Amino acid sequence: MARGRPGRAGGSLFRRMAVVGVGLIGGSLAAACRKRGLAEGLVGFDADGSALQEALALGLVDEACPDAAAAADGADLVVLAVPVGALEEVASRIAPGLTPAALVTDVGSVKGNLVGRLEGRLPAGRYVPGHPIAGRERSGPGAASASLFEGARCVLTPTPRTGRQALARIRRLWEDVGAVVEIMDPAEHDAVFAAVSHLPHAVAYALVNAMLDLEAEGQDVLPYSAGGLRDFTRVAASDPTMWRDIFLANREALTDALVRFRSALARLEAAVTAGDGAALWTECDRARRVRRELV
Amino acid sequence: MARGRPGRAGGSLFRRMAVVGVGLIGGSLAAACRKRGLAEGLVGFDADGSALQEALALGLVDEACPDAAAAADGADLVVLAVPVGALEEVASRIAPGLTPAALVTDVGSVKGNLVGRLEGRLPAGRYVPGHPIAGRERSGPGAASASLFEGARCVLTPTPRTGRQALARIRRLWEDVGAVVEIMDPAEHDAVFAAVSHLPHAVAYALVNAMLDLEAEGQDVLPYSAGGLRDFTRVAASDPTMWRDIFLANREALTDALVRFRSALARLEAAVTAGDGAALWTECDRARRVRRELV
Repeated sequence: MARGRPGRAGGSLFRRMAVVGVGLIGGSLAAACRKRGLAEGLVGFDADGSALQEALALGLVDEACPDAAAAADGADLVVLAVPVGALEEVASRIAPGLTPAALVTDVGSVKGNLVGRLEGRLPAGRYVPGHPIAGRERSGPGAASASLFEGARCVLTPTPRTGRQALARIRRLWEDVGAVVEIMDPAEHDAVFAAVSHLPHAVAYALVNAMLDLEAEGQDVLPYSAGGLRDFTRVAASDPTMWRDIFLANREALTDALVRFRSALARLEAAVTAGDGAALWTECDRARRVRRELV
Repeated sequence: MARGRPGRAGGSLFRRMAVVGVGLIGGSLAAACRKRGLAEGLVGFDADGSALQEALALGLVDEACPDAAAAADGADLVVLAVPVGALEEVASRIAPGLTPAALVTDVGSVKGNLVGRLEGRLPAGRYVPGHPIAGRERSGPGAASASLFEGARCVLTPTPRTGRQALARIRRLWEDVGAVVEIMDPAEHDAVFAAVSHLPHAVAYALVNAMLDLEAEGQDVLPYSAGGLRDFTRVAASDPTMWRDIFLANREALTDALVRFRSALARLEAAVTAGDGAALWTECDRARRVRRELV
């Protein structure tokens, strides 16, 4: 099965790499590993049969497996790239058939307690929790790109139970596809990403839904949308299953972030209500500076 | 002073056009009128002396005037392109020197009661309230473009006091620079733009400020920002003076829009707290569809 591929000076990192979930992230990691010769063979599974066939047709994987366990069977690396809400069940399915040498990693946007639950289902020390910070407006294997992770951050959140060698190999995998790897505590990870990622998505969904509420009452607003709202609609166009799972899995940190946001919004609204132009200008000017720092 | 310019089949619309406020919108309208030969002469004023000199150097205007009244003196069209909060004062300054033939229009993002207050300061029937829906991340005369209004909407909000001929000429001005003109009631305008524009900006400012609050407490979040937050920082990078004025001038409609938004956000949060995946998926999927309709 393993078609040897040339290209990488150091040789392949893995003999048989299984990607469970061949969407944007799983498909891109497969493509990146293929391009760099990091895996001798690449097999895949996806609960969405047409996505799986598309990944096969696009050459992201060599083989489409009938289920997650079959994909993991004999693999020395299993990448779980399914929505966060499906991770535990998929881990349970693949665990019995894993070889002793197999490593398992994931790409989930939530870590925290979920990491411990996954560790409980997988062989001791063989699971390395991961979260590449990469995304696109489009999803699915058709959006996959071998260069998606070049220059991107990838956060790994090992625990005391994570094997050292396992961590080193998964770190090398991400570095070899061009990512900058960062180690973070799982709980800290969830607080940070609740703020910079989960909260903005929740806010974007709510804002766009507020527009739809107005439309439902007969007020024609969407045709007048310009820059501001359009940026929000792009964020709110993200995959609903993925985000439902993230919101539920990171409920506590997201709730904390929402408290923060509401407090900042209340401050701005109080300045509006009070007609306090100086306070309002300060709030707006403060936010403006962040763009310069980020870009 | 009026340097005749070739180019427009129908001849120029205005002999001397005065642009008060030569930023992105005022500067772009000047550039667009120049390119199409709509004005024989173009003069400008800006409270920011360096912006005014830049507009002159860029050829957006032929002449830099020492104040708004001097710019309006002898003009048959005066465009008020200053922040919303400065409109009333500028209208008062130019009113005494206006010729009987002069038309006045503005480009303010808030209409509503402000229109009546401007009508009270300007010659009867000669003021046509306008709002071109165009923007860019950058502001100032250096960001001005003759093509900014091509294909853009421009909302005019005449009242029973607006002269018919005045309205027809301002409509033609905007159509000649490529805009699609739409007539709307001033109060309806404010409700619509509170929802699709002012609310998203308020939310973006608050969201970015919530991140800064976390940073101020020592939590390092900004380096991890990806797609979602970055889109918000772009919106929150808008000019603070302009947005302070808009928020204050459209206080009531913005407050109504904030009530809507908070209601949609509370619905989403309730689904998160209740662990109601079905409700959460529906909220996310509903918002997602808007993107497809808009793009």
